[in-house]
Parts: sequence; structure tokens; C-alpha cells
Amino acid sequence: MRKAAIFMGSKSDEETVRPCAELLKQLGVPHIFAITSAHRTPERTETLVRELEAEGCGVYICAAGMAAHLAGAVAARTIRPVIGIPLSSGNLGGLDALFSTVMMPSGFPVATVALDKAGARNAAWLAAQILALEDQSLAERLLKARAAMREEVEKAAVSDALG
Amino acid sequence: MRKAAIFMGSKSDEETVRPCAELLKQLGVPHIFAITSAHRTPERTETLVRELEAEGCGVYICAAGMAAHLAGAVAARTIRPVIGIPLSSGNLGGLDALFSTVMMPSGFPVATVALDKAGARNAAWLAAQILALEDQSLAERLLKARAAMREEVEKAAVSDALG
Amino acid sequence: MRKAAIFMGSKSDEETVRPCAELLKQLGVPHIFAITSAHRTPERTETLVRELEAEGCGVYICAAGMAAHLAGAVAARTIRPVIGIPLSSGNLGGLDALFSTVMMPSGFPVATVALDKAGARNAAWLAAQILALEDQSLAERLLKARAAMREEVEKAAVSDALG
Amino acid sequence: MRKAAIFMGSKSDEETVRPCAELLKQLGVPHIFAITSAHRTPERTETLVRELEAEGCGVYICAAGMAAHLAGAVAARTIRPVIGIPLSSGNLGGLDALFSTVMMPSGFPVATVALDKAGARNAAWLAAQILALEDQSLAERLLKARAAMREEVEKAAVSDALG
Amino acid sequence: MRKAAIFMGSKSDEETVRPCAELLKQLGVPHIFAITSAHRTPERTETLVRELEAEGCGVYICAAGMAAHLAGAVAARTIRPVIGIPLSSGNLGGLDALFSTVMMPSGFPVATVALDKAGARNAAWLAAQILALEDQSLAERLLKARAAMREEVEKAAVSDALG
Amino acid sequence: MRKAAIFMGSKSDEETVRPCAELLKQLGVPHIFAITSAHRTPERTETLVRELEAEGCGVYICAAGMAAHLAGAVAARTIRPVIGIPLSSGNLGGLDALFSTVMMPSGFPVATVALDKAGARNAAWLAAQILALEDQSLAERLLKARAAMREEVEKAAVSDALG
Amino acid sequence: MRKAAIFMGSKSDEETVRPCAELLKQLGVPHIFAITSAHRTPERTETLVRELEAEGCGVYICAAGMAAHLAGAVAARTIRPVIGIPLSSGNLGGLDALFSTVMMPSGFPVATVALDKAGARNAAWLAAQILALEDQSLAERLLKARAAMREEVEKAAVSDALG
Amino acid sequence: MRKAAIFMGSKSDEETVRPCAELLKQLGVPHIFAITSAHRTPERTETLVRELEAEGCGVYICAAGMAAHLAGAVAARTIRPVIGIPLSSGNLGGLDALFSTVMMPSGFPVATVALDKAGARNAAWLAAQILALEDQSLAERLLKARAAMREEVEKAAVSDALG
Repeated sequence: MRKAAIFMGSKSDEETVRPCAELLKQLGVPHIFAITSAHRTPERTETLVRELEAEGCGVYICAAGMAAHLAGAVAARTIRPVIGIPLSSGNLGGLDALFSTVMMPSGFPVATVALDKAGARNAAWLAAQILALEDQSLAERLLKARAAMREEVEKAAVSDALG
Repeated sequence: MRKAAIFMGSKSDEETVRPCAELLKQLGVPHIFAITSAHRTPERTETLVRELEAEGCGVYICAAGMAAHLAGAVAARTIRPVIGIPLSSGNLGGLDALFSTVMMPSGFPVATVALDKAGARNAAWLAAQILALEDQSLAERLLKARAAMREEVEKAAVSDALG
Repeated sequence: MRKAAIFMGSKSDEETVRPCAELLKQLGVPHIFAITSAHRTPERTETLVRELEAEGCGVYICAAGMAAHLAGAVAARTIRPVIGIPLSSGNLGGLDALFSTVMMPSGFPVATVALDKAGARNAAWLAAQILALEDQSLAERLLKARAAMREEVEKAAVSDALG
Repeated sequence: MRKAAIFMGSKSDEETVRPCAELLKQLGVPHIFAITSAHRTPERTETLVRELEAEGCGVYICAAGMAAHLAGAVAARTIRPVIGIPLSSGNLGGLDALFSTVMMPSGFPVATVALDKAGARNAAWLAAQILALEDQSLAERLLKARAAMREEVEKAAVSDALG
Repeated sequence: MRKAAIFMGSKSDEETVRPCAELLKQLGVPHIFAITSAHRTPERTETLVRELEAEGCGVYICAAGMAAHLAGAVAARTIRPVIGIPLSSGNLGGLDALFSTVMMPSGFPVATVALDKAGARNAAWLAAQILALEDQSLAERLLKARAAMREEVEKAAVSDALG
Repeated sequence: MRKAAIFMGSKSDEETVRPCAELLKQLGVPHIFAITSAHRTPERTETLVRELEAEGCGVYICAAGMAAHLAGAVAARTIRPVIGIPLSSGNLGGLDALFSTVMMPSGFPVATVALDKAGARNAAWLAAQILALEDQSLAERLLKARAAMREEVEKAAVSDALG
Repeated sequence: MRKAAIFMGSKSDEETVRPCAELLKQLGVPHIFAITSAHRTPERTETLVRELEAEGCGVYICAAGMAAHLAGAVAARTIRPVIGIPLSSGNLGGLDALFSTVMMPSGFPVATVALDKAGARNAAWLAAQILALEDQSLAERLLKARAAMREEVEKAAVSDALG
Repeated sequence: MRKAAIFMGSKSDEETVRPCAELLKQLGVPHIFAITSAHRTPERTETLVRELEAEGCGVYICAAGMAAHLAGAVAARTIRPVIGIPLSSGNLGGLDALFSTVMMPSGFPVATVALDKAGARNAAWLAAQILALEDQSLAERLLKARAAMREEVEKAAVSDALG
């Protein structure tokens, strides 16, 4: 299976992004993890992408807040799918990061998911869904995970009163 | 190559979504197109997904406005990647469709792109990027398209005055 | 009297929705309560609605956050009134849930009330108002509840200073 | 069948509200129509509600823009369901009217629908759904209208190209 | 001097509104204080305004949150100036109350000030400014208060370092 | 009667502000009109206020768009009531001007009215209401204007169909 | 004098940015103009900055819409001041571009001005102000331009009626 | 080197602005610091600017919240670059201060940076960048600071797991 790469702009985003790495691990998706910044280390970002391209990296997951340019900077340098997790690190409720991530110009899509931890988990889901297209065994693990989520809900019986 | 499916909730969205179909065609990505609604035809949506699953459909592209539930309704019934194009069909500048598309709960990501026509084009790009992971020839067509975009910009010379 | 059904997408919403169930009980409106999700358990949602239709359920109350599709998913499968409580479970102040609940397409209204607990209470009020149309005794209980609210305000005397 | 009352604050809103009246007529729901304002004619609003209560009016539909207080002013004087259509008559995309309509305090719900014409149609739908609870023949007309909407979508065949 | 009347919709708003009453007292502006609601006690609101009109009340200050209709309800029943303090009692940062207060239709202005405590203080300022038009002694107290504010700022010396 | 002063930042705002001047004239409120800017002509603004103070000007009405500082600049130099009309001259729907006008710091209230023409009319209303506190004849003209507005609404009969 | 460089992402932004170039010319600030994109031509952007650095370019002006990354991409590669003009090219009123431009992380400021044409003019003003710090003759041209703006306002006489 | 002046409207903003002063000190940029208000002390603001102009002050940094007029008031009285730090001191997430700072009319740019502390640091960066245009030694200190930021990121190794 191709691997996934998780980039984030700053060590301080680690706790929010952790659910993404944990879910990839749990789903058996090989991945690497790097801190790199569109602004502080543009060359490092570029070099990382070039090296990962050579290794056949399949999908990039980029988490950033405020004027979140990281996913876009990666998207400018690869034709592999780039997933963006907007982080609500400012006072604007994450709208700044959401707009900076999703409103990409033609030819450079960033597959944007929800804000923060919910988005981090879904970025892992989306990466796995993409890689599962050609990996039947991963596809089965995804179906199993879905079934578990369904059962979790279904075990709560219908009742005539709130617990 | 697996095919892409484009769904939209209403015939009136056709003009906005057209650039998506055109770009898929231009990139040589096989696709089908259907009008189906999360609310008016929930069973049809379900049946279409079930049939497309059987055919090995690789990626779903869903365009919807207002309380845009179509992409989510599809995501609930497949583990294939679902791409959402929010349409600004109301008075809220498309924020309603953007939020309804991107803020999906854990386990059901919708890969959200920009609003309207820009988003329609990028949905095609993203679908092609996903399918190109295992299709070297499509990957080359994407690289060629990127080169054309780059050249388009580069042919404009630096000048000391605005044309 | 027809009964009311309260649906919510996740056990974690229980505390916010509790005032709805409590008020229905206090007003003597029979109701059932179920956890079901538009995305994790679409079939369960469908089955629940079908069974409740058979029992003559009169009104549905659906509480959901983020891209809140639950009320819409129910509205697509019944012609009974559906009330939506948007929950502010994300960073967007509940605007995501509000837009996803209220901006429904033609033919599938969701009667949207305020966010969170204030909305939960008003969802119960609205359900009772609907069912009271053909239940004079419930109508009287509503009038009594209104009178109590009025008295609560009126007992505070006009004063020339703030307590 | 109990009748529905449509109120709007100003003659200039008539074109936006018209689809509401038309749909009620088409569905066979008896209704009256009045221009009255929460601010310019508070007594008239009060008197109209008192008279309509005496006639057994079943549901109120109120359309207003800007600081849309009309639905709330009616809700303060009846225990019958009040439906609010927020109108985007200012520069704020209708957010002003949406918030002024939906964010009602406890005990005075306004069943809020989408903005403008889409909301006007859905206000009629919701009123009919409420009145159909005790009118089997209206319920059947609603089911028929839903079937027509479904067929409208289904007649568009799935194709491999956009028309 | 004519007196000012402070209305608020709920006892729970008292702490936020307190700076308004305190400042009026400090400036020597006679005022009364009442809890009354546009929705729970519309008749009480009406009666209070009628009685205060008879006493020659000069200005009304109304504080309310969410779909803040109180100031508008008072404005509909007096030609005296009405000042509105929007309270951020919901999840929308007070935008709901701000829009519901400021976007009044033609003929029924509400003189809107800032949100919450800052607004409460400024409502008192504005009321005093209005009443000072014909009360030279109050005007002088206002000038003195301004001078005190100026001195408060000016006593902080310019320095080459932050304290 | 004291006079009202209307300031606006730019000749291009004249059409939007015109209803304010027209209504003041119609209500018999003496007023002057000046173009002055908080930024382009701060001294002129200051001088105008100083001169108008000497003449006993009773109320200032300031219309401005974008980062609308004009009303605040006037408020900093007078203790007379200052009314602000936010103008939606940019792409932000007037939110920029609304926030810049209403969110004034403690001690410097700007009595903010609605955006654009609706606000212009209400600024005139509010100014007249303030000046009518000590002018019984103006108060009667306001009551008459209100009555005319009420009759305008009431002449539209209740009907069972939309015209 | 050091020169200014104007970058924009797409030829379609030319009309909006033109006032910037015109004003620089009028103020006698030498400048070059180039179309380059953060995403389509990242290397070109980098090369242009490197070449302009060598020539001693003093200030960069970058105009971009949607997820406006261009100013940030330049800021990452120079320590010269970078001015950003957010363009409202989408449906979000320019909020997307504004947030993507202004919310830069620590160490990489983008001096953000207003949206669109107003911003384009002010970007030229700001660039000239920066370069005038060490160019007394440019400073005098700026003072003269300010005087002209002041006179433009002052020639409009105070009147007792709106023209 | 010309000096920088930091103004803020209120002592209560000191903690938020501190990183600005600290960074200027660390970068060796001479600066003074003053509390002054656009509204409470307009003359003081004017006098300070006049005195600082005489001393050849090179750049102004103004921090303010709510209807943040301070930067604009300074910009109206100098042709030197003015940097604005919007402070999120209200309930609107700082949008009020952001709009009041950035949306300046033609001829009076305020170089706006991010909200609060992130903005405070970047205001210092931007001021230093401007002053470094003619100060090679400051330019080198900026390059060194950038290198330190880059190294901080680069020392975090790429890993196959999240720390």
C-alpha cells in the first residue's frame, strides 16, 4: 500500500492532529509524520514532498490554522490527493483556516474536512478510503469500522424516557 | 480505470456543475451523471449507490446547495471517497452549503472543495488525482494539464507597466 | 393523543436535549426517545420512522450538530411535521448546524427552533402546540404554562433601583 | 379543517410570499391573508390574532425581514403553531431576519423555515403537514405532491454525459 | 428632568445591565427599573409604557438577548427615544441580538449601542446625553465625567518601555 | 428648537443619505448638511463640531461606510447625542460599517440605526424623537406621522387571497 | 528609490489591481508588474523574488482572491515588507481572501489593506509611505496628494440642504 | 534608525501588546510606548503624533479593540506607515476590530496584521522590516531571526509516529 504523509505547521498542533495518526495506525495505513511550515520552512516542505513523491507516497494530510497555507503549498507541488484539516487556532472560530483551506483555485484542490479533532479523524478516514480503492483488505477494515460504529448506536434501545 | 459518478440534486444546478463533467471528459476519466436528491428521492440515491458499488465506481462527486445533504447521504452508504461541491444557491453566499458539506461527523468524511464553478472544476481534479494513484497514464495527463497552466501564467512577461 | 418521537444522533447530545423530554413529560405529551444517526445508521433511522408512522406518531423532533442532516433525513421519509434543534457542537457557534437544519429545499421543511437547550425546550413547546390543535386538554395545559411564565415575570415589582 | 393565516409586514413582501399562498391553495388548505406589522400596527396584529383565535385558526405563517419581530409578536399571543419565513430584505443576506425569527426565548417557539421564496413554499408545506395530522384527505394530497416531486427527479435518466 | 426607564426581559440579565443603572445613578439621572418581556408579558410591557408616558418618561433603555424584540416592542408604543442593548446570551456571539435590535424598520428606530456591559454603560451615557440637552447641570456632570476619563489616560506617561 | 447636523464622509454617499434630510425637512426639524471626513479632513470635522456646539446644535447624524470612524470622531468631541448610519459601501454587506459604528467604547456611544436608506430614515426619526422631548409641537408631528403609517397598513383589507 | 513589485495571481484580476499601478505611477514610485501564482507557478514566484531581491526591490504588493496564498508565499521568501490586497473573487464577500491574507503566523506579516479597488489604491499609498521614509521628495508628493484630498472635501460648502 | 511608536487605547490591552514591545527590543528597534485613545484623548493622540513627527518617528503601531479607530486616527495625521493590531476584546471574535482597522478609505491605509498576540508579534516584525530597508544591520538581525525559526522547525525529525 502507498503510504500517507501527515504534515503540520507547528508542534503545538500535535494534540489536535493525534486522532488522525491514531486512526491511520488502527486501520493499518502506513504513514509518516513531519512538522513543516509553508512559511518558516518552504524549502523543507518542498524537499519533503519531492522525497515522498520518489517513495510513492499516496496521499498528503496537512493540518494548519489561521491563514492555513500548508495544504495549498503541498498541493502546488504534487498531483497526489491533498487533504486539509483546518485548525481553529485563532479567535475566528476556525473560519480563517477553513476558508484558507477550502477555497483553492482551479487545478489545486484541497480535500477539506471538518475543523480540529473531528476533521483530524475524518482526514484519516478519507486517506484510508482513497488508499482502499486498490486494497481490498483495507476496504474490509473500513467496512468493519463502519459496522462497529453502527452497532454502537444500535445497542442503545429505543425507550420512552431519556436515561 | 474505475469510473466517477456525478450526482446533483436538481436539474437547475447543471450549468454550475458542467465544468466538472467537461474536465473529467478532457482528462479521460470515465463517468456517469445523475440527478438525484437526498430528500426527494432518497431511495433512488440509495439504489444508485448500490448499483454503482457493484460496478466498482471509484469516487462520488455530489453537488448541492442550501442544507446540502446529498454528499452526506452518499457518504453514509459507501466507503468510496465522496467529494462535495457546495453550491451558493441561497442568500447566504454559500456558507449554508459549505458548512452542510464540510462539517461531517467522524467516519463519514466529505472531501469538500470550493464553492460553485471553481469547486466543480476542482472536484474533477480531485477525482482524477484519486484515480491516478493507480493509473500512470492518467497521472501523466494531470502533469501535462499542470504544465499547461504553468505555461499560461509564464507567457505573461514581467513588465514595468500594466497592460 | 398522537405521540412525539425525539431522535438524536449521538449519546453525547443527551444533556442538551434533556429539557425537551422533561418538558414533554411535564406537559403530558407521550413520547419515545431514540439515538439514531443519519450517517452511521441510515437504515435504523428509516426503520424507526416506518414503525413510528405505523403507530401514528404525530411529530418528530431531531437534534443534531455540525452538518446536521438528521432532521432532513427524517423529513425525507414522512409527511408528519419535523422539528429540528441545531446543536452548537463545533467551533462555528452552531451556525453550521443552524444552516444545515433550516435551509431545507422545497417540499421538505424542518421547523427549526433556537440552538441548544433553549431550542430543546422550544422543540417540546412546538410539538405540544401542534398536538394541542386537536386536544383541548393539552391546549389548556399550555395556557396554564404560559400563565405561570407571565406570573414569574410579573411578581418582580417595578423598582427605582436594581436589586 | 382549521384555516391558516398568512401575515406579512409590508405590501412590498407580497411577491416573495406569493408561493406560500399558491401552494396552500393548491393543497386545498383554507387560508386568509393580511398585511399587519409588529411595529406599525401592534394593536391590529393583536386584534387579528384574537379574532382568528375565535374562528379556530390552526396555524399562523408570518413573513418579515430585517429585525423580523412579526412572528414573535404573534407567538406571544397564541398557543397555536407559528411559522416564520425570514426575508432577506437588507444587506445582510437575510441573517438579520433569520436570527430574529429563529432565536426565540423559551415558551415562544417560531417554527422557522428557509429564507425567502424557498421558505415561503416550505411554510405552506409545514402548515399543511400540521393540519394534515387530523385530516386524512389532506395527508393524501401531501403524499401525492411528494410522489410528483419524486417522479420529476426520476424521469431524468442516468446518463454518461451532461445534457 | 424627565426620567429614564430600564427594561430587561429576564432577571438573569441583571448582572450585565447593572453598570447601566449604576452609571445613571452616578450621573444623577432619575430612573426606574423593571423586568418585562416582549413575549412572556406583552400586556405588562404595553401597560408599563403607557404609565411611564403619562409620567413623562424621557427615554427607554431595553436590554435583551437572542431574538431581542423588547426594544422594538417598546418603540412600537412610544415616540420617545428607545435605546437597545443587545445581550450575547446565545452561541452566536450576540450577532442575533445585535441584528434583532439595530435592523428596525422605518419609523421605529432603536438607538443601538455595543453588546453587553460595554453597551450597558453606553446606554446610560446616551440616555444622559439626550436628557442633558435641556439640563445644563447634567451636561456639566457629563463634561466632568469625560474630563475624568481623559485624565485617567493622560496620567500614564509616555515611556520607552512597557510597564 | 435645537438643530440637527448631518455629516457624511463623501459626496458619493449623498443618494443614500437623502431620505434622512428629506424626512427632517418634512418633520420640520432645522438641520444643516456637510461633507466632512474623519480621515481626509479631521480638522474640518473638529472645527465644524466646535462651531455647531456654539450654535447649540442638538444632535449629530453621521453616515459612513467601510471602517466608519466619522460618528466616533464626532462623539469624541461632543456630549450631544451622535447617531450613526452605517453604509454598506464595500463587499462585506455593511458588517464592516455596522461594527465600526456600534461597537464604541465606554463613554462615547453612537446611537446606531439600520444600514443604508432604512437607517437614513430612522436616523431622522431618532433625531426628531430626541428633539421632540422638549418640543410638544414636533412630538405631535411625530404622532401624526405614526398614525399615517398605521393607516397605510390598515387600509389593506384582510382577504382570503393574495392580490 | 527602491522599486515596488506588484504581483497578482491571474490576468483576470488586472482591472481591480490597476488603480494600484496607476497611483504608484502618479506618485513617481518605480515599479514592475508580474502575473505569478503561489500554486500554478511556485518556482516562478520564488525566482522572481530572488531576482527582485538582488535588484534591491523595496516592497512587494500581492493581490489574490479566494484562498489567497500569494502574499504569504512571497513573505516566506523575503524580509522586505509585503502588502496584501484581498480580492473578493468568490461568493464569500472577500472574507475568504481577507482571512487568508491577514491571519499570517508569527514572523511572516502581510500588511493587509482593504478589499478590491479601495485596497489596491491603499496598497500603493502604503508602499509609497514606506519608501518615502528615506525619500523626502516622495514624502512631499504624498503630502501634496493628501492636501488635494482635503481640498476636494473642503470645497463642498456647508449648506442647509442636500444638493 | 528612526524609531517606532506603539500606541494602545487602554492599559488593559497591555498584556496582549507586550510581545510587540518585547520583539522590537530583541530586534534592537528603538521605540516608545504610550496609552492614548482616539475617543477619550483625541488631542493627546494628535499632539503625540505631532511631537513624534518632529523627532522623525518612522512607523506607528496602534492596537485597539471593538470599533478600533485609533490606527485610523493616527493615519489621518501622518504620512508615515501605520500598522494596526486588531484586538478581540468583545464578543464578536475580533471581527469588529479587524473590519474597523483594515477597511480604511483611500489615502489612509492601515497595514493590518493578525488579531491579538499573533498580530502584536507581527506588528513588530513588520515595523522592523520597514525600518530595515535602510538599515543593513537590522536586516541581518531579521535574517538571523528567520533562520532561528527555520531551525526550530527543522530540528524536529520526520518520524513514523507522532511523539
